[in-house]
Amino acid sequence: MTNYTDMWEKLNLDLKAHDSLMQVLGKFYGDIYLSQQGRLKGAEYLDFVLSEVHGLRVQELQDAKAQGRKIVGTFCVFVPEELTLAADAVQVGLCSGADAGTELAETLVPRNTCALIKSFMGFKLARLCPYIESCDLLVGETTCDGKKKAYEQLAEMAPIHIMEVPQKKDDHDRVLWKTEVLRYKQVIEKLTGKTITADKLKTAIKTVNAKRRALQRLNRLRADEPAPISGRDVLLVNQISFYDDPVRFTAKINELCDEIEARIKQGQGVAPKGTPRLMLSGCPMAVPNWKLPYIIESSGAVIVSEESCIGSRNTRDLVDESTDTLEGMLDAIADRYLRIDCATFTPNTERLDNIVQLAKESKADGVIHYGLLFCQPYAHESFKVDKALKDAGIPMLSIETDYSMEDVGQLKTRVEAFVEMLK
Amino acid sequence: MTNYTDMWEKLNLDLKAHDSLMQVLGKFYGDIYLSQQGRLKGAEYLDFVLSEVHGLRVQELQDAKAQGRKIVGTFCVFVPEELTLAADAVQVGLCSGADAGTELAETLVPRNTCALIKSFMGFKLARLCPYIESCDLLVGETTCDGKKKAYEQLAEMAPIHIMEVPQKKDDHDRVLWKTEVLRYKQVIEKLTGKTITADKLKTAIKTVNAKRRALQRLNRLRADEPAPISGRDVLLVNQISFYDDPVRFTAKINELCDEIEARIKQGQGVAPKGTPRLMLSGCPMAVPNWKLPYIIESSGAVIVSEESCIGSRNTRDLVDESTDTLEGMLDAIADRYLRIDCATFTPNTERLDNIVQLAKESKADGVIHYGLLFCQPYAHESFKVDKALKDAGIPMLSIETDYSMEDVGQLKTRVEAFVEMLK
Repeated sequence: MTNYTDMWEKLNLDLKAHDSLMQVLGKFYGDIYLSQQGRLKGAEYLDFVLSEVHGLRVQELQDAKAQGRKIVGTFCVFVPEELTLAADAVQVGLCSGADAGTELAETLVPRNTCALIKSFMGFKLARLCPYIESCDLLVGETTCDGKKKAYEQLAEMAPIHIMEVPQKKDDHDRVLWKTEVLRYKQVIEKLTGKTITADKLKTAIKTVNAKRRALQRLNRLRADEPAPISGRDVLLVNQISFYDDPVRFTAKINELCDEIEARIKQGQGVAPKGTPRLMLSGCPMAVPNWKLPYIIESSGAVIVSEESCIGSRNTRDLVDESTDTLEGMLDAIADRYLRIDCATFTPNTERLDNIVQLAKESKADGVIHYGLLFCQPYAHESFKVDKALKDAGIPMLSIETDYSMEDVGQLKTRVEAFVEMLK
Repeated sequence: MTNYTDMWEKLNLDLKAHDSLMQVLGKFYGDIYLSQQGRLKGAEYLDFVLSEVHGLRVQELQDAKAQGRKIVGTFCVFVPEELTLAADAVQVGLCSGADAGTELAETLVPRNTCALIKSFMGFKLARLCPYIESCDLLVGETTCDGKKKAYEQLAEMAPIHIMEVPQKKDDHDRVLWKTEVLRYKQVIEKLTGKTITADKLKTAIKTVNAKRRALQRLNRLRADEPAPISGRDVLLVNQISFYDDPVRFTAKINELCDEIEARIKQGQGVAPKGTPRLMLSGCPMAVPNWKLPYIIESSGAVIVSEESCIGSRNTRDLVDESTDTLEGMLDAIADRYLRIDCATFTPNTERLDNIVQLAKESKADGVIHYGLLFCQPYAHESFKVDKALKDAGIPMLSIETDYSMEDVGQLKTRVEAFVEMLK
C-alpha cells in the first residue's frame, strides 16, 4: 500500500487522528464487507476504491489540481455535476458518514443536529477529510434548516457557494431554481476560468446520464430473485458514485452488471430464494455509515432497493438529451434537478408515489424507513410514507438513529422481529 | 362572566377538556400576572382581553362571520395582515402556546418537534382552540422545516393556503416573494368575494402601521430607568396584538403609553432603579407561554425588550406609506415583509445587528436567548448571537426549553446565577 502521509500532511490533516480513523474504517470494512459470502468478482473494484478512499483517489485530485483543474465539494444531490464537469472541474461528495470531531462540531452547531451535519462540520474542524481540504470551492444548498444554517458556519472556514433550492415546485419556483442553475454556471466558470459551451455541456450531460443509467441497470437487476447482490454492496456502489471518476465508475458498474446478468442466468444469488426482501427509504447513508444495512442483512433479510439520496433519488431521473442548444440544456438540467423528491419540498406527494413504485418494482416484502435522529423533513414524512405503504399493503418499520453504536442491539431486535413477521 | 358554552359547542370544541384548560389558564394568569406589584391601570385592558380570550373575542368573530366577514388564521408574522384587512376579513393568530393534545399531535408529527408546532397540531386535533375552529382559511408559510411539514398534515383537516417564504434575500427571491404576496391577494379576494382596491389597501396599511407604531412607542418608553412596565405585561401586549381588533388594540396601547409617560415623569417604575435589565431574544412565546418571563422577573430582573416574532421582529418595520397606487403598495408590502430577520433566512446577519442595536436601545444589561427545544433555526443562530453580543460587551445566557414545567427549578437556578452576575 502506498504511503500517502506526505500528501495528508500537505493537506494539513491531523495525521494521528486520521490514522486512527483509517484503522477503524479498515476494521469496520473487513467486518461488514469482506466477510460476505458469495460476493461478486466485480466487488474487487469496490474494495479497491474503498481501501484507497483517502489515498489514491485523493492523489488523483492533487494530480488534477496540478494540471490546473478545480475541485468542487458537495453535500447534496442538488448540485448539477453536469455544469461542474462541463467546466472541466471535478465534483466530489464530502466526508459526512462517521462520528468525527463531534465535540468540535458542537461548538458551532446545536447538539440536536443530525449526525450527518455534525459529521461534516466535525470532519472539517478536526481536519480529517482529505476531500474537503482538496476543494477549491464548496457548494452548499438550502435544503433543510440544519444544513442551511451549518453552511453559514462552514463559510467562515472555507469558500462556499450556496444554491437556493425552492421549497415548492410551482412556476415561479422553477424560475428561481433556473436562476440558481445559471448562477452556479457563472460561479464555476469564474472558478475554472473556462466557458461552458454547448458541446462541453452535451458531453457532460451524457457522462452523468451514463452513470445514472448504469445505476438504474444495477437496480433493475436486483429485482431478480434470488437477489443477485447484497444491499451493502449496492449502497457502497452508490456511495462511491459520489467520489470516483464518473467515466471509470460507469465502466466498472456496467462490468459488475454483466457479471450479475450471468449470475442471474445461473439462478445464483447472495441469499437463498425466499429470503425476505427489504427496501430502505429515507435519509442518505454516507461512507462509512453501513450500520443499519449490516444489521438488516445479518438479520436474515436482503436489501433490494434504496429510496435515498445515496440511492435511487439520485439516479432515477436523467437529464433530457434531446436538445443541443446551451439554453435548452440548461433548462433540461433545471427541470431534472427540480424533479428530485427531497422531503424539504412541500408538498412532496411524488415521493410517496415513487416509494410505492420502487417497492413494487424491486419486489420488496417490506420497507425500513431510515431517519437520522433530528432530521425533521424525513421524520415528518415517515408518517405519510407509512400510510402510503399501508394503503399499498406493504409493511413498514420506522427507525431513527445516528452514527453511534450504542443502539445496535436494540435495532437488531427490532429489525429481526420485523423480518420474522415478513416470513 | 358570560356563558359561552353554546358557542363553544357550536364550534365543536371538546367542552370538558376545554373547561379544564381554561381553569389552568386562569390560575396560571392569576399567579403570573395578577400577582404583580405596582401594575399600570391600563393593564386592566390586558386582563379583560385575556379573561375573554376564548370568550368575547371569539364571540366577536362569530358576529363578524354572521355579517359575512371571513376569518383568517395564521401562525407566523409573514402573512400580510394589510391584505387580509383590505379584503374586509379578520386575521387572528392561532393557539400554540400550551401543551394541549400532545399525544394526538405526536400521531402526525415527530416527537422531536418543537412545542409550538406540536401545540397547534394538538389544539386542532383535541378541539381546544376556538380560533382555528372559527377560521374560514388558515394561512401557513414555508419558514422552518417543522412548520412546513406540519402544515401538510393540517391541510388534511382544514383549508390552508401556504405562502412560500424564500430562504435568501436576493433579487430573484424578492421576485418569488412578490409573486406569493400577489397570490395571497388573489386567495383572500376569492375567499371574501371582495376586491382589494387602492383605497382599501391604503387604509389597511395605515391601520397595521398604527398598531406597529403604538408598539414601537411602548418599546421606546421601556428604555427609561426604572423600567416603567414589566416584561410580562409587554409580552402579553404583543401576544394580544395577534388576537384583538387592531384599531381597538392600538387605541388601548396608546392609552397605556400615555399612562407610562406620566409614570416616567414621576420617576416611578415596576422595579427599583438598578434592577438588572434583560432582553429576551429568539423564539416566539405564544399565549400562555409565560414560563420564562415569569422565572426571569421573579429572579430579581426586569425584561426591557423582546427580540422575537411576538415582539420587536413583528413591529420594527413599517410598510412604506408614501405610495398611493395599488401596485406601489403591494411592492411596499412585499419589501416590508422581506425585511423580517427570521432565522430561516440564510445568511441572516441583519438579525445580529438588530439584536445588538435593540439591546443597546433598551439599555439591557444582558440577553437571554430563548430557544424552543428542537427549533433548529434559532438554535443554530444562538451561537452567532452569542458571539455578536460578546463582541458588543453584552453577556448572554442561552436557554432551550419547551412548555413543560419540569425544568422550572433548573431554569430558575440558571437565570438567578446570570442575574447575580449582572449586578
